[in-house]
Amino acid sequence: MLNEAVARQLREIVGEKFFRTDQEALIAHSYDGTPMLQALPDGVIYPESTEQVSEIMKIASSNLIPIVTRGSGSNLCGGTTPLQGGIVMVMHRMNKIIEVDMENLTAIVQPGVITGQFIAHVEGLGLFYPPDPSSMKISTIGGNIAECSGGLRGLKYGTTKDYVLGLTAVLANGSVIRTGGKLTKDVAGYDLTKLLVGSEGTLAVITEAILKLIPQPKTKKTMVAMYKDIYGAARTVSKIIKNQIIPATLEILDNPTIRVVDDFAKIGLPLDMAAILIIEQDGEPEMVERDIEKIHLICREEQADRIEVAADREEAEKLLTARRSAFTALARLRPTTILEDATVPRSKIADMVLRTNAIAQKYNVNIATFGHAGDGNLHPTATTDARDREEVHRVEEAFAEIFEAAIELGGTITGEHGVGVVKAPYLEWKVGEAGVEVMKGIKTAFDPLNILNPSKIFAKETKKRVVVQHG
Amino acid sequence: MLNEAVARQLREIVGEKFFRTDQEALIAHSYDGTPMLQALPDGVIYPESTEQVSEIMKIASSNLIPIVTRGSGSNLCGGTTPLQGGIVMVMHRMNKIIEVDMENLTAIVQPGVITGQFIAHVEGLGLFYPPDPSSMKISTIGGNIAECSGGLRGLKYGTTKDYVLGLTAVLANGSVIRTGGKLTKDVAGYDLTKLLVGSEGTLAVITEAILKLIPQPKTKKTMVAMYKDIYGAARTVSKIIKNQIIPATLEILDNPTIRVVDDFAKIGLPLDMAAILIIEQDGEPEMVERDIEKIHLICREEQADRIEVAADREEAEKLLTARRSAFTALARLRPTTILEDATVPRSKIADMVLRTNAIAQKYNVNIATFGHAGDGNLHPTATTDARDREEVHRVEEAFAEIFEAAIELGGTITGEHGVGVVKAPYLEWKVGEAGVEVMKGIKTAFDPLNILNPSKIFAKETKKRVVVQHG
Repeated sequence: MLNEAVARQLREIVGEKFFRTDQEALIAHSYDGTPMLQALPDGVIYPESTEQVSEIMKIASSNLIPIVTRGSGSNLCGGTTPLQGGIVMVMHRMNKIIEVDMENLTAIVQPGVITGQFIAHVEGLGLFYPPDPSSMKISTIGGNIAECSGGLRGLKYGTTKDYVLGLTAVLANGSVIRTGGKLTKDVAGYDLTKLLVGSEGTLAVITEAILKLIPQPKTKKTMVAMYKDIYGAARTVSKIIKNQIIPATLEILDNPTIRVVDDFAKIGLPLDMAAILIIEQDGEPEMVERDIEKIHLICREEQADRIEVAADREEAEKLLTARRSAFTALARLRPTTILEDATVPRSKIADMVLRTNAIAQKYNVNIATFGHAGDGNLHPTATTDARDREEVHRVEEAFAEIFEAAIELGGTITGEHGVGVVKAPYLEWKVGEAGVEVMKGIKTAFDPLNILNPSKIFAKETKKRVVVQHG
Repeated sequence: MLNEAVARQLREIVGEKFFRTDQEALIAHSYDGTPMLQALPDGVIYPESTEQVSEIMKIASSNLIPIVTRGSGSNLCGGTTPLQGGIVMVMHRMNKIIEVDMENLTAIVQPGVITGQFIAHVEGLGLFYPPDPSSMKISTIGGNIAECSGGLRGLKYGTTKDYVLGLTAVLANGSVIRTGGKLTKDVAGYDLTKLLVGSEGTLAVITEAILKLIPQPKTKKTMVAMYKDIYGAARTVSKIIKNQIIPATLEILDNPTIRVVDDFAKIGLPLDMAAILIIEQDGEPEMVERDIEKIHLICREEQADRIEVAADREEAEKLLTARRSAFTALARLRPTTILEDATVPRSKIADMVLRTNAIAQKYNVNIATFGHAGDGNLHPTATTDARDREEVHRVEEAFAEIFEAAIELGGTITGEHGVGVVKAPYLEWKVGEAGVEVMKGIKTAFDPLNILNPSKIFAKETKKRVVVQHG
């Protein structure tokens, strides 16, 4: 609970209307996109400037109040649930695109800008901002930066961190730092910009970002290849890269995903296929033409049962929208959907899908897998029911084994969703005890009082590693 | 001085031959590529494995011995001078290319691999590793990672940090951490990989790196445009980017540089030009053709006096080699050469060159400017004589004012050379007091005893800011 004096100070900073403690506000900000996680905050605040955030942080520091910064809360790692209460700081009022600089190909934005709207805005100017998380219609750039969001174009274009050139951020004590600039090259001290990207609101509050833009690809072309044998699909992925073609998008949907996506989007996907690849190439017309032709050939060599090139943008968009709807479509099946993002080197995609299927069978749970085959970032998704404790326990055990498998294959526990609460017990599996210690040291350097998004990234206890049965 | 017990322990780890305390070894490792900086270490050690480095660090921690890790010592910021004595750890024995993975387009290397040799090796396999610092014939990958080296291809392809996917590193206490992996997407905790890149040996000792490779561009084409008016050259740079052409290389040489480079490389550059641009585009043949044509047109619009497209690779290489020799050529003029790398947003290139010339005149010092126009990374280079204390003082004052100008124009004190000793007094100008404090906190989290490359990045005293006279 916040005492009245603190509440008054906070209202003085942002104005009466923008600090709320009513039940409606508290409940609306007690959860995020993650299932089975909820905790009430003590207040919700809506700042409109870096200065206000700085003032808020000074009060939070003096009074040891946890601050959970959030945008739309579309994250899937419990990253913005206020587990220790305190104040949820919502960045939606700071939603201006301050500048698009055509000479330096940069933009300056506030964190509350909606990703999809920003992408559309710069596309209108003939420019391109590649990071495209599936949540982009509602997610904010600030949230994308906090989580280092990826998306469908990660393989060719990288993820959010590759497009953040500079940040304005407020530290736990209220100090304001400015990192980077409109610069490709800047080695003045440690790279705080890249450190803050993906730090999940635990190191500082981001209040402004300088983003890198690139020229818009002149053209793009989209195709699907369908396989009765999932290994044919996996081999196709490897072979495309081995042939030094880097497609803009290279997505995979397994059979359970195909079924629900088609039921949801009604685009006539064949339900008897083991896997579908959605492949897009963009760039210069001649290159796109050549690459799509070569990919076509590779798909045939790998025994694709059907190969279709989208006739026009409309058809292509339908396909990509269907893919982006996979989570929503799966979510209709049963009351609770748990979407994970274990990631492996792309050469291990087939092994990972096989291991995932075997694990699902072993624990008798429903897991559909889809994701970014080209960059090895898979989304095994369990549909279950939170009220069935026994089944949920089996799902959790299955995921623990999936994380173990990913690490064994040279991968990681999370490719683009973040650690948050959900993956915290597994962090040490990936980065080791010494790695966790170093990260905790960094956290303390930035936030010695542990008021910025506490209980995230670092778990009280590391989960015991699963002994995986091979063979 | 190291006591005999410690020396014996170190010899036991690496073998008799690979720990040296003779004068020859000490003097050879008392300096690096930076002028006017020298300090004798107490010993020089040559480990051959991560395990040996770990053992060495345990002894260094227990005995509070400074460890200065180095490759070829070609840095220009005093980054590897052992200012507090201790042991210089030379990584040249760890020089294996462990693996090139054609399916994941990655390589695993030890830090002592020579950059140029690595580039040639992967090119032989049809792949491409873009970071190409001018020192690449002698510099090591480990040194490049420590300094986040850039080069001529930074504009289009980014710098070293964009190609490091994972690291094995030994912490000050001897613990080994492994970060990242063969993964485009990995958000398991803070991004230690990117934090270690550019950390100048102050946070950990890098003993292995996973590098990202990309397909080799199918073709490239090189041209020069020569200007009697430097602003024509600067406007050309801005206009190229504004037209959404991102050349692979876009270099500028001012008149003093043209003169010495031509005297050195004898390639017949016209000595009456105010500036020369060297422009290279690579990629798909049709795109390269179109881009070069369009650039040609822009150069003409901006009143270039001569425009020449290199007839073949040999002619192009001659041009690029001449550019790479700028430092060497300038170094022949007078006993001491001080090469800086103030960096500005690319739209400010012309302003920065003008300001640099005015500052050189004001302090009556010789400064030639060349550098990476496309990414705003300029190398104003002073030729002077270390024995002339008064002149050297004027050079230092001039550079302080150049750094101030760069920051005023939205730039930074160092684009690709690092902070080291030389820029440490200016770090706060760029990152602010709060930024320096946060960085010091990170340093303490990694290296609480301050034994890893002490006296680097953080200065005892920040230089007073110059009041710049405008107009």
